Amino acid sequence: MVTKLILVRHGQSDWNEKNLFTGWVDVKLSPKGEQEAARAGELLKEAGLKPDILYTSLLSRAIQTANIALEKADRLFIPVVRSWRLNERHYGALQGKDKAETLEKYGKEKFQEWRRSFDIPPPEIEDDSKFSQVGDERYKTVDPHVLPKTESLALVIDRLLPYWQDVIASDLLDGKTVLITAHGNSLRALVKHLDNISESEIAGLNIPTGIPLVYELDDNLKPVKPSYYLDPEAAAAGAAAVAAQGQKK
Amino acid sequence: MVTKLILVRHGQSDWNEKNLFTGWVDVKLSPKGEQEAARAGELLKEAGLKPDILYTSLLSRAIQTANIALEKADRLFIPVVRSWRLNERHYGALQGKDKAETLEKYGKEKFQEWRRSFDIPPPEIEDDSKFSQVGDERYKTVDPHVLPKTESLALVIDRLLPYWQDVIASDLLDGKTVLITAHGNSLRALVKHLDNISESEIAGLNIPTGIPLVYELDDNLKPVKPSYYLDPEAAAAGAAAVAAQGQKK
Repeated sequence: MVTKLILVRHGQSDWNEKNLFTGWVDVKLSPKGEQEAARAGELLKEAGLKPDILYTSLLSRAIQTANIALEKADRLFIPVVRSWRLNERHYGALQGKDKAETLEKYGKEKFQEWRRSFDIPPPEIEDDSKFSQVGDERYKTVDPHVLPKTESLALVIDRLLPYWQDVIASDLLDGKTVLITAHGNSLRALVKHLDNISESEIAGLNIPTGIPLVYELDDNLKPVKPSYYLDPEAAAAGAAAVAAQGQKK
Repeated sequence: MVTKLILVRHGQSDWNEKNLFTGWVDVKLSPKGEQEAARAGELLKEAGLKPDILYTSLLSRAIQTANIALEKADRLFIPVVRSWRLNERHYGALQGKDKAETLEKYGKEKFQEWRRSFDIPPPEIEDDSKFSQVGDERYKTVDPHVLPKTESLALVIDRLLPYWQDVIASDLLDGKTVLITAHGNSLRALVKHLDNISESEIAGLNIPTGIPLVYELDDNLKPVKPSYYLDPEAAAAGAAAVAAQGQKK
């Protein structure tokens, strides 16, 4: 049996536009981000892909992306499950900081290390920072010891994989087509696992926003063929844009 | 302990505008309906009401209403549960029919009987009607014997109450603030139950669209005081408009 997994990275948020580190701060999509989500839904519909269940993070920008895309794809009725384990990487003390100012303050080497190293997290966020999630109602049912105050990509993988293995995998093994709308780094973590990408190579992998990425998986949840974007040309341009964004800073 | 239940009737759909009987046909909100949903979310936020969980029907217009309202209320992250038992009343053979033409064809008495009688359903819809839900994927996990082909308000109550008693009640008794976004007749069914309204009186009860109706319930799920709309003036005007709509036809 082959089951389908569809990954969608949310589009532009209000803070992408302002060039701020976001992480777990709950900002909404910009109008451009809403358009990207609508396009994702149209691509699903044109491809005849029909998600049976939706997984999202607990962050509004991923949820908005799903809501808009599923409306366009006429699939608003499917069940929805949300988990903090699909959240974006926690950016620690950088959350809420201007990217250009951070680069100036800490220097290019440190900046690139935090952005692209596999296992070096930024400094932890202070509990009394206004960009901390301590006391945030949406995490109140989660063991406080497991909630991050900063994360590297390695730590994102550590907290994401148990959820993948226990929860999402179960629906795929039931034959359901699964849609995940999430974030640049939580999706990179998943792609690294699915495609067995090395720690050094994952740094160069960029997932474009708003373009569904489709995996066809066998009974062992291994890809039966390379994953593919529903709009390959736009995906290539989008990935290049994400990479260039990394260069500039 | 007092728990809160918030009911929101979806706003204008594409078919309300066209004066067609809708029922279980899955039409989307019109732009005006989207504005009504946004207003509902703003009212929740202004009132400081924070739903812990959302229940909707399986119909897009109720789901869209919830998605838009929760975005405005900054509560997109709450869990969502959907059920066909919260669907609008099934309008039988009238689904997809023009209301004015139906009035002309069947006469005023029959027309009003179908619209407002407590327990007289319209004729059943044919399985091969393009407005039938036979074969509709969203109902594929439901016992076909229980899915209606027409409904009176009495039949809506019969299928809604078990879900209320087993599922929604459980969350309220856990102390959760529950939001339900649904339809004119599924909400009338619930209000009839909560306020113990007689079969004759319920015909005169109209729920306005897009204005949250709040119940404060005790441990027996009885209202501790009369339910109230978050914008009482707009609610009175809205209910009058719904009533007038009934008169005209």
